[in-house]
Amino acid sequence: MAHDIQVVTEAELKEAVKLDLTAVDVVERAFAALASGKVVMPPILSMDLHEVNGEVDVKTAYIPGFDGFAIKVSPGFFDNPKLGLPSLNGLMILFSANTGLVESLFLDNGYLTDVRTAAAGAVAARHLAPETVDTAGVIGTGVQSRLQMIAARLVRPFNRVLVYGRDPEKADACAADLSEVLRIEAEVVTEPADLVARSQLVVTTTPAREPVLKAEWLHPGLHITAMGSDQTGKNEIDPAALMVANAYICDSASQCAVSGELEAAKAAGLWDKGTPVELGEVITGAKPGRASPDAITICDLTGTGAQDTAIATHVRKHFRTAGQILRT
Amino acid sequence: MAHDIQVVTEAELKEAVKLDLTAVDVVERAFAALASGKVVMPPILSMDLHEVNGEVDVKTAYIPGFDGFAIKVSPGFFDNPKLGLPSLNGLMILFSANTGLVESLFLDNGYLTDVRTAAAGAVAARHLAPETVDTAGVIGTGVQSRLQMIAARLVRPFNRVLVYGRDPEKADACAADLSEVLRIEAEVVTEPADLVARSQLVVTTTPAREPVLKAEWLHPGLHITAMGSDQTGKNEIDPAALMVANAYICDSASQCAVSGELEAAKAAGLWDKGTPVELGEVITGAKPGRASPDAITICDLTGTGAQDTAIATHVRKHFRTAGQILRT
Repeated sequence: MAHDIQVVTEAELKEAVKLDLTAVDVVERAFAALASGKVVMPPILSMDLHEVNGEVDVKTAYIPGFDGFAIKVSPGFFDNPKLGLPSLNGLMILFSANTGLVESLFLDNGYLTDVRTAAAGAVAARHLAPETVDTAGVIGTGVQSRLQMIAARLVRPFNRVLVYGRDPEKADACAADLSEVLRIEAEVVTEPADLVARSQLVVTTTPAREPVLKAEWLHPGLHITAMGSDQTGKNEIDPAALMVANAYICDSASQCAVSGELEAAKAAGLWDKGTPVELGEVITGAKPGRASPDAITICDLTGTGAQDTAIATHVRKHFRTAGQILRT
Repeated sequence: MAHDIQVVTEAELKEAVKLDLTAVDVVERAFAALASGKVVMPPILSMDLHEVNGEVDVKTAYIPGFDGFAIKVSPGFFDNPKLGLPSLNGLMILFSANTGLVESLFLDNGYLTDVRTAAAGAVAARHLAPETVDTAGVIGTGVQSRLQMIAARLVRPFNRVLVYGRDPEKADACAADLSEVLRIEAEVVTEPADLVARSQLVVTTTPAREPVLKAEWLHPGLHITAMGSDQTGKNEIDPAALMVANAYICDSASQCAVSGELEAAKAAGLWDKGTPVELGEVITGAKPGRASPDAITICDLTGTGAQDTAIATHVRKHFRTAGQILRT
């Protein structure tokens, strides 16, 4: 039976959907819902395509109380730049939570993922970082390096940002962009240990498979959000750091155990604390997060289908009349 | 980065894509590829939504040699008819196998699934049914009941079709439709045992959770295709029948073990034959199928992502210039 489907392009989405506190709040609501135990979030469908140096992930979650649910498809084909094409593309499909009918196609090429991923970083900072953050640091120099700092500053108005990257030119460019957007001092540091020592909030945004942040660098009054690991084998944080920290918090305990920092800590035989606390449990107050200003906290973000459903329903609300309507 | 995406609606697809031998051949090629062991086909992403009496399945497969791969999303919300809406909808997304870029969106509301599912039935009949089929029978009276018989007759030009359904009116309507489309005699039978006794080819097309076809009805020279079971708990064929038959063939051994007829046979503690033969292995000749005209064969179809990739790439070839082009 024919029905109408809204189709919205990347350009339209970029024009209308911003990384702002409203986006942060809607993603926070999704995490809180996850803690209720009523969200239906199946394991990520992941397809490794070695033959073409590619991968495809499909994420989804049904959140009671949200009027839609998203299915997000994210292909990554890492030889594309040789062809002058982007590595990443993809789209979100929004379904009615009442009828399962396709309501919207957001042809975002990953833009909404960028927004909801950065928003999750802000949620983590809001609930786990020290109340006062003077200096924030970012390890990594890509799109998320910028967006994570922009998002974090929505909830912790720091005065200085430090940037570390293996490639000095990329680090310079990232610092210049952050300085311009945030209108604060942005400084490139050449040693990640210095960056951590001088920061109260650090975000790691790399695809590292060996830790880029060592346990001995941790200091009182530090919060770390590790958002780079999203696949088995990736590892940004020294597994020992998870044991040294006063609190280790996951976006999804089941996902982090197979594709987050927790995976490496378990593989190293270090993890002995049972099921870790989830960010949603901290948001709702069901479990403790930061116990004191001097505590050391680590948040592990692998990216959840719940965030995709949150951002897609958010977009839909702000886009009732936009996009193109197709009658299928 | 912007790129062009082809969007094709259900009406356009129905106009252009028919259930014919070309469709059967392309689905057969996908099954043969599955037997090569080189296909990447992750487990189905399945989301049960008890709260709204709904479910969503996502299937995909990457087949070397096919220039695209599909991701198919199939929601089923079974209270929709009360609202005057269809239970099923959904779409297929076709990606370039070389770059992972979205090439096409087929807003088919399940039409392409109908075609590829019926085509798989024809592939099973072609390779497993007796060479001569005078009478074919179908148990069930829905869309697939019609399409399975239409597809089977492309490869086995039978002279008579028998229809059994619990609801006599629906059985009458199904028989009338088949008589009109196939221009052969179509007869409603009131006992499924009679239907099986008189047929050389039987297809079961029901959502049954208790067997609709009993082991004692099997007879020499019979082929059965069970295509209804696609979820844990569904069961059309008496588990004992799988042991009585000379050959039991799966579309996907891993899928059938959790959501096909094999599941019930395993649960009953009957199955002791190890990993079953797959349809693709019969097609390529790697494993035997029907050994003699008198053999009894059963084929268990749960529906594979490989079929979705096959039909979607087929559609794309026949649709290079059609549909609407969106620049994302």
